[in-house]
Amino acid sequence: MELARRVAEAADLVTVALDELLPRADGPESRLTEAMRYAALGPGKRLRTYFAMETGRIFDVDEGYVLRSACALECIHAYSLVHDDLPCMDDDDVRRGRPTVHKAYDEMTAVLAGDALQTAAFEILAHPDTHPDGNVRAELVTRLALASGARGMAGGQMIDMLGVRDDIGGVARMQRLKTGALIACAFELPLVLARAQDGERHALMAFAHDLGLAYQIVDDLLDAEGEAKTLGKAARKDAAKGKANFVTLLGVEAARSRLDLLKTQTKSHLDPFGGRADFLRESVDFVLERRQ
Amino acid sequence: MELARRVAEAADLVTVALDELLPRADGPESRLTEAMRYAALGPGKRLRTYFAMETGRIFDVDEGYVLRSACALECIHAYSLVHDDLPCMDDDDVRRGRPTVHKAYDEMTAVLAGDALQTAAFEILAHPDTHPDGNVRAELVTRLALASGARGMAGGQMIDMLGVRDDIGGVARMQRLKTGALIACAFELPLVLARAQDGERHALMAFAHDLGLAYQIVDDLLDAEGEAKTLGKAARKDAAKGKANFVTLLGVEAARSRLDLLKTQTKSHLDPFGGRADFLRESVDFVLERRQ
Repeated sequence: MELARRVAEAADLVTVALDELLPRADGPESRLTEAMRYAALGPGKRLRTYFAMETGRIFDVDEGYVLRSACALECIHAYSLVHDDLPCMDDDDVRRGRPTVHKAYDEMTAVLAGDALQTAAFEILAHPDTHPDGNVRAELVTRLALASGARGMAGGQMIDMLGVRDDIGGVARMQRLKTGALIACAFELPLVLARAQDGERHALMAFAHDLGLAYQIVDDLLDAEGEAKTLGKAARKDAAKGKANFVTLLGVEAARSRLDLLKTQTKSHLDPFGGRADFLRESVDFVLERRQ
Repeated sequence: MELARRVAEAADLVTVALDELLPRADGPESRLTEAMRYAALGPGKRLRTYFAMETGRIFDVDEGYVLRSACALECIHAYSLVHDDLPCMDDDDVRRGRPTVHKAYDEMTAVLAGDALQTAAFEILAHPDTHPDGNVRAELVTRLALASGARGMAGGQMIDMLGVRDDIGGVARMQRLKTGALIACAFELPLVLARAQDGERHALMAFAHDLGLAYQIVDDLLDAEGEAKTLGKAARKDAAKGKANFVTLLGVEAARSRLDLLKTQTKSHLDPFGGRADFLRESVDFVLERRQ
């Protein structure tokens, strides 16, 4: 299947590139660089990379630039998983079928590895190899920082940890910050590289927004229905913790209906791009049905 | 005293600027933004800011640009203190005379506040208000990332936590990464803003290197001799933990002699700048004798 091959190819490319870009060390700090590599180079779907690369292709952006931007996204994603798994956060022992970083190493190494992965993301974006124009590189840094900081991913994680949400609006806002902002950034960075027009940007941001929401509903359905083995991590976590999510609030059937509607709506945002967005359009079903 | 006034003025300026730049929130994530402010706006010597501002003055750099760069440095410094104080790291309850962030809030909030303070640092540097030229802004991001990541501060903290050092060379290398790199960055960012020549850059980097080393020896002397009340944090921590530092390895007298030599050497690096570096020159004694 052509689409599956493209997704796998993007994952391979970004893993090789990250292996090249992440620091290595000889001294005692090698424990830190090894933990960073364990977190960032392990198995993963690399969907943010796939989205970034397909978006780059729509606008004919240099693939090397997009790939470095994708490396930065994956560093931020990896750092967030390492810190979210910590005992003081979600307290997870297993991630993608392997021990989490604080289990494979220890807690202090996990905190530092997450910290240094975040730093690595901005170092990669700011390097001249990511784009010859410094204004573009600074804009990439700005976009990634906004998506991942207090007004994005970190803020969303705070809301998630506090568990303060008892309606769909609250759950949707939490999702938009915690996971939606970084998914949207996977489309936004190539748009910056392409110096895309506002109309194109708005259309792709709407696509990213709805896709992120749909992705979260799939995640919540999997959490409710899935088995730990399929997920590669603990299942039914939200219900066990008494946390509201789309499925606990809507029920499985209503969540499924909402997901179906959302899929159609998501794809419709790509209409202005016509055939140029065929792979991105097809990937909606592929990505959302990956484990169902 | 003119110098004390300049140091205090720089601290006031950066605190006001940080208050302006750090995010505020209305939703439940306000817990995160409040913890970030607690960590970054509390009492502090703000020496990195002072160094940055005096360096900017040597080269007639726009004070607003330097101040924003100093805000980024203080965000990174604050994030590192929040994470270093965590139970899985130094496990400190008190910092600058106040409860540490995980004591005033909780551990998960402390992890997230540190994370988001790091992100804020790069967001501030990449913003057009920090310098009109994107290439300069991207270079600032690169310098701060190198100073604070796995090959800088985070790597140094890893070495410190592992406690693997039994000679002066090992202690010096740990110090250079853990604290020296960010102190040097306080001189480096204004040099980038000034587009300074290599010779000037090398002289100031040598100054920063020796000053950082001297500062660490003072810290180790204070840890050995000081009282918790004067320090605003626990004293004799290194000895209690069996950690080698300059004083445990050299003894108090030899450490004092080394410090005196280092002071002279530090100031000599400023010779090429003549009278332009008078305040920086004077500040060596001021900064190093601050609590002795």
